[in-house]
Amino acid sequence: MSDKLVLHEYSASGNCFKVRLTAAMVGARLERREYDIMKGETRTPDFLANVNPNGRIPVLQVGDRFIPESNAACYFIAEGTSLIPTAPFDHADMLRWMFWEQYNHEPNIATLRFWMHEIGSGNLDDLKRMQMPAKRQAGNAALKLMDEHLGGRDWFVGGSITLADICLFAYTHVAGDADFDLARYPNVANWIERVKGQPRYVAMDA
Amino acid sequence: MSDKLVLHEYSASGNCFKVRLTAAMVGARLERREYDIMKGETRTPDFLANVNPNGRIPVLQVGDRFIPESNAACYFIAEGTSLIPTAPFDHADMLRWMFWEQYNHEPNIATLRFWMHEIGSGNLDDLKRMQMPAKRQAGNAALKLMDEHLGGRDWFVGGSITLADICLFAYTHVAGDADFDLARYPNVANWIERVKGQPRYVAMDA
Repeated sequence: MSDKLVLHEYSASGNCFKVRLTAAMVGARLERREYDIMKGETRTPDFLANVNPNGRIPVLQVGDRFIPESNAACYFIAEGTSLIPTAPFDHADMLRWMFWEQYNHEPNIATLRFWMHEIGSGNLDDLKRMQMPAKRQAGNAALKLMDEHLGGRDWFVGGSITLADICLFAYTHVAGDADFDLARYPNVANWIERVKGQPRYVAMDA
Repeated sequence: MSDKLVLHEYSASGNCFKVRLTAAMVGARLERREYDIMKGETRTPDFLANVNPNGRIPVLQVGDRFIPESNAACYFIAEGTSLIPTAPFDHADMLRWMFWEQYNHEPNIATLRFWMHEIGSGNLDDLKRMQMPAKRQAGNAALKLMDEHLGGRDWFVGGSITLADICLFAYTHVAGDADFDLARYPNVANWIERVKGQPRYVAMDA
């Protein structure tokens, strides 16, 4: 990997933290460029034309090319390391958890955290407020499914930490920001400590 | 790949069709097992305990192990074929479109199709009805982004068909079921014909 890596990000986002944590775990150097999403800095004509037509962060810049989507960026950085299992079943199972994270976990836990912690509960429109109970229920269902899966195992896939753990960790460990009670999910709480105990772990606010 | 492959599915689902189309493209044999999701057949205690704790289809069974999440199942089946590029950037770019599909495309286009075409517009509760304008707008934004990306190129990644095309094709080619007007997106309409023209293409209702 000889191209310079630049992370286009909003550092409070768990999706951006995933990419930083992956880079730290494999010892890759990342230059960081911050955008204020609350001011629409990722929806400017320049950003849409040159960084990501989808108007979202994170985007990983590799030389003069760009990879949007947090989990794809993590995969690029971790390619060829022990964070990505090589056995086909385990590899697909890792992707399974990464797709599940984007479909069943992030739109509930991360979205509620963004609404309550970044926008603020008092500033939400009716459509958001009406969706909150369903997102609360689906977020708790996601945490329960994780807790059951972690019963009797240390990591989501196989016997060591993989991208599945890193991608799920990002929003899980700050789920309390959206008033999810992690004490109800003891296997998840223990797994969070295991991730934090990894030698090259970096914190979200580092 | 010596283990028998069984697809646990609801055949009208685009997510299930993706897996069948991938198998057809690479010549893999799939046994099919049908569940009626309208009757809750994927939420039974047996299904949750033995097939997918998330209560969703598709699930790819590989011998006695299970891979939920459509895009992960497609990856397992296509591993080692030309549907998955080997160059690290192109590989990550393929995953980028697959994650984008699950986050920005499926929850809008597939969900509207499910609500209008399977449940029926007259049977929707208030929360679903209130979300329809936002999903309509986001679905059209997804189709517009695809149309712009396909300007001057035949396939989403590199110079030949990959899983990115197959996974995006599944719900795009039936977006008319949710009243999306594909004639507004000529590059998408041409790309749909290109996918249908592939020698091993199988139709959704095959």
